Amino acid sequence: MEIIFFGTSSGIPTKSRNVSGLAVKRKNAKSWYLVDCGEGTQQQILHTRLSLLKLQAILITHMHGDHCYGLPGLLASAAMAGRSRALTVIGPAAIKDFVTYSLNITNSRLSYEITFIAVENLKNDFELADFKLEVVPLSHRVPCFAYAFLEKYSPSQLDVDKLKAAGIKPGPIWGHLQKGLDTLYEGQILKAHDYQLAPKKRRKIIIAGDNDKPELLADCAKSAEALIHEATYSSDVAAKLGGAYQHSHAKSVAQFAARVGLQNLVLTHFSPRYSDKTSATPSIKTIELEAKSVYQGNLFLARDLEVYYLDGDSALIKQVSSKRRR
Amino acid sequence: MEIIFFGTSSGIPTKSRNVSGLAVKRKNAKSWYLVDCGEGTQQQILHTRLSLLKLQAILITHMHGDHCYGLPGLLASAAMAGRSRALTVIGPAAIKDFVTYSLNITNSRLSYEITFIAVENLKNDFELADFKLEVVPLSHRVPCFAYAFLEKYSPSQLDVDKLKAAGIKPGPIWGHLQKGLDTLYEGQILKAHDYQLAPKKRRKIIIAGDNDKPELLADCAKSAEALIHEATYSSDVAAKLGGAYQHSHAKSVAQFAARVGLQNLVLTHFSPRYSDKTSATPSIKTIELEAKSVYQGNLFLARDLEVYYLDGDSALIKQVSSKRRR
Repeated sequence: MEIIFFGTSSGIPTKSRNVSGLAVKRKNAKSWYLVDCGEGTQQQILHTRLSLLKLQAILITHMHGDHCYGLPGLLASAAMAGRSRALTVIGPAAIKDFVTYSLNITNSRLSYEITFIAVENLKNDFELADFKLEVVPLSHRVPCFAYAFLEKYSPSQLDVDKLKAAGIKPGPIWGHLQKGLDTLYEGQILKAHDYQLAPKKRRKIIIAGDNDKPELLADCAKSAEALIHEATYSSDVAAKLGGAYQHSHAKSVAQFAARVGLQNLVLTHFSPRYSDKTSATPSIKTIELEAKSVYQGNLFLARDLEVYYLDGDSALIKQVSSKRRR
Repeated sequence: MEIIFFGTSSGIPTKSRNVSGLAVKRKNAKSWYLVDCGEGTQQQILHTRLSLLKLQAILITHMHGDHCYGLPGLLASAAMAGRSRALTVIGPAAIKDFVTYSLNITNSRLSYEITFIAVENLKNDFELADFKLEVVPLSHRVPCFAYAFLEKYSPSQLDVDKLKAAGIKPGPIWGHLQKGLDTLYEGQILKAHDYQLAPKKRRKIIIAGDNDKPELLADCAKSAEALIHEATYSSDVAAKLGGAYQHSHAKSVAQFAARVGLQNLVLTHFSPRYSDKTSATPSIKTIELEAKSVYQGNLFLARDLEVYYLDGDSALIKQVSSKRRR
């Protein structure tokens, strides 16, 4: 599984961080899923290898502008790029109204159908093409949701040692056995399941929307490999502001991740007051240090256009990339 | 007068060009005017010295997404940046509906008032703080308008030679005279108008929206120093596409500029098919060569974040800048 961040700033864009949006996909797959679509998301996508023609579904966490104002433009651009395949848009029921209204008032006709699905009515284990979806209601100023992407199946793996011990050399026959096909080999029928390893656990990544109660994700997080969660503030700033904005601070999210034993935690959606220059005060370093002080797992602070993937041991790895836009 | 381009691509953004938006201002002034606001305009503004707190008015040429989808986000960001001063938004009547709907459905409350003015009802010589405004209806798939910015007054200039000949040395007294104040000097009253040069012509720049009939601007252009107009296509591509999109091609705009004797012409809003790499086919060079073949004036093809200003002789100058975003 792979995650690509399009925007990591809260509320308003900065010179180095756009507003919310990220891609979820199977590693090496061309098809992908977009979670949130703040203004400028389509511009960020241009700096990746992702195509609007291969976009499978869009999932919106909540109806705040920094999470959805990029949607009409992205949908119109997909049409101008020649998209004809239907697109699924999942989100609060109002997202359909917003999209329909915006496209109509600007005389935009799409070349493809949109299937809107109201997240409020979505049953758990909804099936996307590549993932099962879990939905968890969160706590924010407006109705807001987390989307957990669960691998639909773990590709079966061959027991290479056993194959070699039996003298079966690499070749097309290995491919057949991996696909689960019993196969004739030197006059003998090889049963596929004899040469397959036990399937690995299907993995799960949670993409949370804005939320001031991380513990709402406790059940869902028990079986998750990674959580991507907002940490808009550090705890001192959160205390000063009071709770009206209903955002999380770094310590509360990290404490939650430690308590449920999450292997990987990515923080994002930072208030623009935190500078990327570590010499500034406050800097993004404040958020990192605070989270590190209570969480010993694999911690990242996301930046725009960074790519992360889960490796074989379900450790989240940040890909080194030369493709930085800003 | 000064122009700053935020986006110069038609319909969809590219890696190097955003969709429509530009700033108009008096040179060296902090207050400014935004014409069109495609998605991502607020992100482009971050790469200039312009502040959303000093924005005087927004003018929308027409209700196509690539000219207005950035408006709700920009207005919300101005509020989050602490704007309290009222803002004027001029455009087709529907722009009020679009903004109101988008802000409401995302629970956005602004910290300042917006005065919406429907361009359909706007009288010519409407006065902005720094400019008089002329409006010209254009020809496009939806109602579309050009906005001409006319300097409100040309600052009076001192007759420096005459001052020097009279032995009046530079000092505060020069400032008084320039402001038109009669002033006591060595026991003698100096009449301000004796030391002022005849006022220069007030200058005019036309910012046209999408338009397939440049000749609609003939009257307005007679007294204009510069025209900024779309040249979405080269003439061969325009011929192939037929007229349904109702855009101009380079030759038609340049021929018009030549016919009315325009001193300065800036082309913009290029179809993404024209590459910025001159080795590609077709490249933006095709548009430039076509325009040059029929127009001998001061010709520019705009690029994102370029800054242009009118010098003393009303020649448009492109400022050399190190501030390029992409």
